[in-house]
This record gives sequence, structure tokens and C-alpha cells, in this order.
Amino acid sequence: MGKESDEVILLDYWPSMYGMRLRVALAEKEVKYEFKEEVVGGVKSPLLLKMNPIHKKIPVLIHNGNPVCESLIAVEYIDEVWKDKAPFLPSDPYQRAQARFWADYIDKKLYAPGRKTWDAIGKEEEGKKELIESLKVLELEALGDKPYFGGESFGFVDIALIGFYSWFYTFETFGNFNMEAECPKLIAWGNRCMQRESVSKSLADPHKIYELILTYRKHLGLE
Amino acid sequence: MGKESDEVILLDYWPSMYGMRLRVALAEKEVKYEFKEEVVGGVKSPLLLKMNPIHKKIPVLIHNGNPVCESLIAVEYIDEVWKDKAPFLPSDPYQRAQARFWADYIDKKLYAPGRKTWDAIGKEEEGKKELIESLKVLELEALGDKPYFGGESFGFVDIALIGFYSWFYTFETFGNFNMEAECPKLIAWGNRCMQRESVSKSLADPHKIYELILTYRKHLGLE
Repeated sequence: MGKESDEVILLDYWPSMYGMRLRVALAEKEVKYEFKEEVVGGVKSPLLLKMNPIHKKIPVLIHNGNPVCESLIAVEYIDEVWKDKAPFLPSDPYQRAQARFWADYIDKKLYAPGRKTWDAIGKEEEGKKELIESLKVLELEALGDKPYFGGESFGFVDIALIGFYSWFYTFETFGNFNMEAECPKLIAWGNRCMQRESVSKSLADPHKIYELILTYRKHLGLE
Repeated sequence: MGKESDEVILLDYWPSMYGMRLRVALAEKEVKYEFKEEVVGGVKSPLLLKMNPIHKKIPVLIHNGNPVCESLIAVEYIDEVWKDKAPFLPSDPYQRAQARFWADYIDKKLYAPGRKTWDAIGKEEEGKKELIESLKVLELEALGDKPYFGGESFGFVDIALIGFYSWFYTFETFGNFNMEAECPKLIAWGNRCMQRESVSKSLADPHKIYELILTYRKHLGLE
């Protein structure tokens, strides 16, 4: 269904773990696209507001003029349109449901605790505890000893989680803990994913993310 | 893939709008299943805790011993396993993404404001405003003048929303507003869905839900 002549545009914001999902997914499918930075200085562009009037959030994938919003939905869309290459979801319905379950778990359980570690609301310790708890569930229940979440090949849950990996440095620095000591298999998984060009070229630099948050905290008078 | 000999069990709680999704989905596919009430007097059963150890929530669909958790994921699972009958999702990837977008919108935007209308935390007015706002977006942006959300046939978004319809009486009574005056097309849609046996036989009685909430509020000394 995906064609060479397709126009693919990604409305994104460079440090977004959700935007990174779409960058990785498009890279895995070898789809050429135009990256548009649509949040500058905290301000959302008119194009973003027009393309996602309901939630007003990046990322938005625009395929031949049609916007697809919400990152996991867009990743599934990419998988369905460019279906001949590197399938993200397995074909078995039960395994598909399991993959969707863990991707949904990531959406529900990581952002809020991760944010508490750095958002200067005095909840660093609480955020750290909740984040480690959620990550350990992922590590023990979903990843285990497999190379990727779906088994031997990189797939849907890996794509859902990988953007958070580039935030780990920020979480552990402000939350004052060592991610590798807490979740060694998850770190090994992240390093394994980084061997893929689709990932290493799509993820934001962890130190740049840290700098962004440091600036934010300085602005609030906290550093 | 679904066979006559399949063992299908639904762990549920009768007033749950999420459980109702699975009841309707299984009825649409004409799948026979065993309904198990797993929340009694506010207490969750050992079977539920065993089958959904991560979230500890109903509904859980157990198909030949394998649990599928999270209601929208289970509805997609049902659609994929019993795929020959009454497809819930369209085949076109963009329309599938749109359906998933609105189902996700329902998950994100209805429960919390609906609960505020009756949960005796002094936020009835706020809940009413937010709920009407979210429902109007659904009515105007997603339903429009179509008979069902997906067009001519009953599908994924209808299944996602229909459980809330049986809570409308509770929302409007405690929130002190008239749902039909606010969202006439949505009420017409709900009445249309109720013409289907899959829906009318699966939904909880709105007055029983109201009685349940009334008892809850009396227990708190509010009525």
C-alpha cells in the first residue's frame, strides 16, 4: 500500500519519547519522510493545531495529507500501510494482544513517574520509586531473557519503549539512582536496540535532553 | 480461528462499561461464553487477581485458558480471532486508525468526568461540563449524521462507547442536566444501538446502575 510517491510528514518535537516511536517505525520500514519541528520555545505551531485539533499534541504523522494522531495508533498505521517490510506486530492474535497490552502498559505507567523525577514539584523520591517499580515489571514480566520484547525480532513493544531509553539519563540523574543497577536487563536491551541504525539515528541525545531539563529547572530557580 | 469447541470465559462486574464492551463484542460474533461475576461487594476474586496480576481489573477475557486484559485490546482480539463474522474494524488502514483514535478518545475523556457527576467529591458541576464537552466532540466530530460511528455498520467505536450509554441516566440525574437536550444525535445513536439484540441483552439496566450509585452515596451520608 505504501508507495515511493507517497508524501509522508512527521510533526514532532525533538525530545519527545512519543515522537521517537514514529521516527524509529518509519526508519524500520525505510520510509522517507519530512521531519517538521512543530514545538518551538514551548509554542505549538498552527500546522500542529490544525492537524491535531482534538488533542493538540505531537507527534502527528501526515500521510498524503491525512493526519494520524496518537503515537501507538500511528505506529500500527505504519505497520499496516508498509506491511511488506519488518512487521512490528506478530500474526498470532494472542501474541498481538500481548504486545498491545505491554505497549499500553508503557503508555499508562512510565510518563507520570518519570516526570516526577525532574519536574521540581518535590516528588523526585516518589517518582523514582514508581518508575523503578514499573520498569521492573517490564523487565521481569515482559522482557525476561529475550533479546527483544517480542522475542528474536525488534517489534511493537520495543518501539513503544525505546524513546524512554533516551530519557533514562535524565531520570536517574535527577532521581538520584542508577538505572543499570536497578534494571540491568533493560539497559542491555536498550544497548542492543542502539545497535540498530533505525534506533541510533532516531533517538535524541540523552545529554541534550538532560541539558533541556537542567535549563528548565534553572529557569524555575532550582539549580 | 475461533472454533465451536473453544472455551471462552468473561471475568466481569455487571455495571462495568468496559465489561459491556466485551459482552457486546462476543454477542456480535455469536460466541458462547461463561459470564463470571468477579467483583462482589467491592472485593476482587482470587481468579481475577491471578488472571490480571498487572492491573487487577475486570474485564478479562479467557480464551482456552489464555487471559486477554484491557477491554479495547480484548475487543480487537475478539475481532481478529472470530474474523469471519461482523468485522468491527474496517479494512482500510486510515479508517482503522480513525476508529482506534476515537475509541482511545473515549477511554481518555469520559470516565473521569462521568465519575465526578456522582462521586460525591463536590465536583458535580465540573464533571457535567467536562462530560458534555467530550460527548459533544464525539457527537459532532466522530458521529455526525451517520447511523453508526463507522458509517452504515455497527463497529469498534460503537462498541467502545455503548457501555457509557447505560450510565447516561446516572450522569444526568446526579449532574442535573438533560443528556438528550445536550447531545440529541448521541441519544438517537444509543437508541439505534439498543435495537440490536447484541446490545440490549448485554447492557446493564440504567436504573439498576442508578440504584447502585444511590446506595453508594447513601452509605457516605449524602442522600
